[in-house]
Amino acid sequence: MSRLNIAKGRVEMVHGSGGRAMAELIEQLFAQAFDNEWLAQGNDQAQFTLPPGRVVMATDSHVVSPLFFPGGDIGSLSVHGTINDVAMSGAKPCYLSAGFILEEGFALADLKRIVDSMAAASKEAGVPIVTGDTKVVERGKGDGVFISTTGIGVVPEGLQLSGDQAKPGDAILLSGSIGDHGVTILSLRENLGFEADICSDSQALHSLVAAMVECVPEIRCMRDPTRGGLANTLNEMAQQSGVGMQLMESRIPVREPVRAACEFLGLDPLYVANEGKLIAICPQERAEELLAVMRAHPQGQDAAIIGTVVEDSYHFVQMETVFGGSRMVDWLNGEQLPRIC
Amino acid sequence: MSRLNIAKGRVEMVHGSGGRAMAELIEQLFAQAFDNEWLAQGNDQAQFTLPPGRVVMATDSHVVSPLFFPGGDIGSLSVHGTINDVAMSGAKPCYLSAGFILEEGFALADLKRIVDSMAAASKEAGVPIVTGDTKVVERGKGDGVFISTTGIGVVPEGLQLSGDQAKPGDAILLSGSIGDHGVTILSLRENLGFEADICSDSQALHSLVAAMVECVPEIRCMRDPTRGGLANTLNEMAQQSGVGMQLMESRIPVREPVRAACEFLGLDPLYVANEGKLIAICPQERAEELLAVMRAHPQGQDAAIIGTVVEDSYHFVQMETVFGGSRMVDWLNGEQLPRIC
Repeated sequence: MSRLNIAKGRVEMVHGSGGRAMAELIEQLFAQAFDNEWLAQGNDQAQFTLPPGRVVMATDSHVVSPLFFPGGDIGSLSVHGTINDVAMSGAKPCYLSAGFILEEGFALADLKRIVDSMAAASKEAGVPIVTGDTKVVERGKGDGVFISTTGIGVVPEGLQLSGDQAKPGDAILLSGSIGDHGVTILSLRENLGFEADICSDSQALHSLVAAMVECVPEIRCMRDPTRGGLANTLNEMAQQSGVGMQLMESRIPVREPVRAACEFLGLDPLYVANEGKLIAICPQERAEELLAVMRAHPQGQDAAIIGTVVEDSYHFVQMETVFGGSRMVDWLNGEQLPRIC
Repeated sequence: MSRLNIAKGRVEMVHGSGGRAMAELIEQLFAQAFDNEWLAQGNDQAQFTLPPGRVVMATDSHVVSPLFFPGGDIGSLSVHGTINDVAMSGAKPCYLSAGFILEEGFALADLKRIVDSMAAASKEAGVPIVTGDTKVVERGKGDGVFISTTGIGVVPEGLQLSGDQAKPGDAILLSGSIGDHGVTILSLRENLGFEADICSDSQALHSLVAAMVECVPEIRCMRDPTRGGLANTLNEMAQQSGVGMQLMESRIPVREPVRAACEFLGLDPLYVANEGKLIAICPQERAEELLAVMRAHPQGQDAAIIGTVVEDSYHFVQMETVFGGSRMVDWLNGEQLPRIC
């Protein structure tokens, strides 16, 4: 094997050939960063045991642009996003796979930075990347790097979370401020200079989830409000459960610089993507207890009860505004922020 | 919800927004084609139970160009490829996930054709696509559609297949003719007109694998020779097991039109990708029995014992040619066929 020139080299078509150059890329870049016993098996698949219980599988393809942003990059995001999709079922995420689609000419130094960031996120979360794949497309047929991650996990006994479980009277909780990720990306993309004050909230939420379901196993459902933001995710859940929702705007935390940036950009923070927040719906009588658990966790310090599930055959999400009026919070129509994750 | 215009519509950025348009695309195209109880859960993750045993996970990103070819398309290929990666461990593949990266402007009719083909391949294989994700990138930042699939399966008790298990004296078996997939793609891409006589071998091999491990559980390892072809895959296994290999060229089946196309194109069929063939290494004394099982299966009718594992501290793969000489079968160096899968 020859040494990759990571400092100055670029991705070439030959790195996707299946031959020696691909083996070098995998060995010297991916395997070295992800470094675990499953990858070391060296097969086209990873083998492991899972604790008993229902298995959960989630997948996400990541195409965020730009690739690097305050608070993370496509690498850490691809780990956090899929861990969160698994965790929202109440499951403990166990293993990840990663598929890379690289564009010819992409700097190996940037790829290494991304892969190292993935490895760090995976190690911090305790969820190893156990198998993967690499493809290369010609210059102009991709955009630097796309990463598809799949996660599997196991649901602890006694949990039955699903988006169709919300019931009238339930409380709606949110783990923290909204809009941080989307506004960070957009500000960077448009060169607006807000990045000094704002930062993506990209983070893996499974330890927060574990604390929540441990204390309140009756949680009906959880979901992370990514693309389409809080508004769209709540509409999905209302639709799925056949209920309406009534929110209180004053309870929804939005950080001041994010609010300012949204005003400047003409964005409604309710529709802006988050990558480190969750919505939980639980029986009203357990809501205060759940809130306390969330606030006691570093990732839920700003958690709030933001509304109530109501009966509504139209499955509308409505909101009492800070001015005391009422507004509809509709599905996201049209496109707000392309390639946010 | 409004109706998608599948006949004349195109992928728009809004289909990746997370909002209503994305929900319509998922509902009217993906969910309808894949149609199963897990997708119907409507959550960002699928839940299921697995039979007891070691779990296997494999992932592949598919960027084949062109998207449609004799014998399949990127949709069926993305199902077959990942099922095969899971099956090569001896596992029964159970579930698949699929992540789509779509290029703005891609015809919805073509997308539907691909998705229907995936659905058919998944149903034929009995391995449902239980969860997925859709992203859209701007025109010129992708190439129609890329599909990342991940599969999970469970290894029957008593099996311990791995690329590092080959031992001197073992027999090397191949399930059928080589080169069909790669030559088909290249001929099509270069407008050579060979497609009339040739066809991709893309197929899911898990039922062949099940028959093989049932009869000969002592199989040391299996692998499907995709990118890099038979030559590269054997070199990988030789390296991993710390052995050499001695092949007999006369035993390696190559279909006549494939041989002719390879000659015309200046390709060595040993290095051309396959998508429906497997290599198995087993103890010599079980080789004839394994061969009989393979030949009795529709996917292994042309199976052959193509060589022997030998002691070799250099881990060389060598071949006795049809002319009685000997040649080295080295790793694939450089790039033969980009975007073959």
